[in-house]
Amino acid sequence: MAIVTIERKVLEKNDQIAQLNRNAFDRDHVFVINMVSSPGAGKTSILERTLEYLKGSIRIGVIEGDVQTDLDAQRVAKYDVPTVQIVTNGGCHLEANLIHDALANFDLTNIRILIIENVGNLVCPSNYDLGEALKVVVASTTEGDDKPLKYPAMFRNASVLLINKIDLVPYVNCNVNVLRANALKINPKLEIFETSCTTDSGIPEWCAWLRKNATD
Amino acid sequence: MAIVTIERKVLEKNDQIAQLNRNAFDRDHVFVINMVSSPGAGKTSILERTLEYLKGSIRIGVIEGDVQTDLDAQRVAKYDVPTVQIVTNGGCHLEANLIHDALANFDLTNIRILIIENVGNLVCPSNYDLGEALKVVVASTTEGDDKPLKYPAMFRNASVLLINKIDLVPYVNCNVNVLRANALKINPKLEIFETSCTTDSGIPEWCAWLRKNATD
Repeated sequence: MAIVTIERKVLEKNDQIAQLNRNAFDRDHVFVINMVSSPGAGKTSILERTLEYLKGSIRIGVIEGDVQTDLDAQRVAKYDVPTVQIVTNGGCHLEANLIHDALANFDLTNIRILIIENVGNLVCPSNYDLGEALKVVVASTTEGDDKPLKYPAMFRNASVLLINKIDLVPYVNCNVNVLRANALKINPKLEIFETSCTTDSGIPEWCAWLRKNATD
Repeated sequence: MAIVTIERKVLEKNDQIAQLNRNAFDRDHVFVINMVSSPGAGKTSILERTLEYLKGSIRIGVIEGDVQTDLDAQRVAKYDVPTVQIVTNGGCHLEANLIHDALANFDLTNIRILIIENVGNLVCPSNYDLGEALKVVVASTTEGDDKPLKYPAMFRNASVLLINKIDLVPYVNCNVNVLRANALKINPKLEIFETSCTTDSGIPEWCAWLRKNATD
């Protein structure tokens, strides 16, 4: 019982700090997305393609979240955008206070889109508001078509679903129509894109959507 | 500070119940493995292949852990082995008390190998002893070769690594030698098998290892 109380307090405290983050983003007109997925679903690759597509025309900042290493920040570094790596040191998700601390390293007035790449985890990050405008969940076709049913909170709390590694469909046991139907059963409002970072399929559409929502 | 104390107590309590589970397994000579991985790495498929290979010659029981649904237990049901589905209802990992409760549904004297399939999560299950003999981590080639460095606790606490979906290597960005080296850097004692549930590659070797360790 004590634990439940503590957990509720942790989430309340997190929501308060998330609201501070959201106020800061609103004040400086920064559109913030929180990218979530299983490990290895392709969040960093999608981020790289997104930076390639949009970097010349809109100012982007990146916060990388990882349990260990700054490997992802190293990958992003070549695009020469403001980037902060958060290492959670065993922590299974990002929390609003980590984002709040990271913001000290950004000039928000000089950023239009902030992309937060969460820890690879399809369960825990779903509960934690970071102050983002919306969550983008990436599901790889290699994970099969049943994941929305087995991990519903993440799909319920996301606004966008990127069905990634769509080029691998011929080789894996995944029916994309079933995956879409399962996702929409959990969350009928999901905006869905089918993407591949190998063929670039769907990347222009996703980037156009992101740019439109960031500038509307 | 309060939270850290609570977390420590949760882990201490978990370890006590895990020891009770371990005592029960030792008493009835049951060899227990705790299968962990990202969502969609192929734990259930490996379990299915393992049941096909070993079911005729050694008695196996299964505990399925999922955030939601009994889809995995349904998949296992066709092999006609004792199976219990644990639904964590949002919980991101199995704990020893859930296993303890599930054991009431088994006749342990009639089981030689108990396979526990944990929630798909490469972070949280690493901290929780369930009373198992060892953890088996499944890493899919589709997740890339950097996961042991980014999620080290899971690879450090496992005894066996199954590099799964080895048939997809030609289509994905994963150097298996780098993946092996990264895993061994984190845990030099890891026993490694390369497996595919599509081609059955590596499955006989893994099953032979499991049988040997269960009956030695």
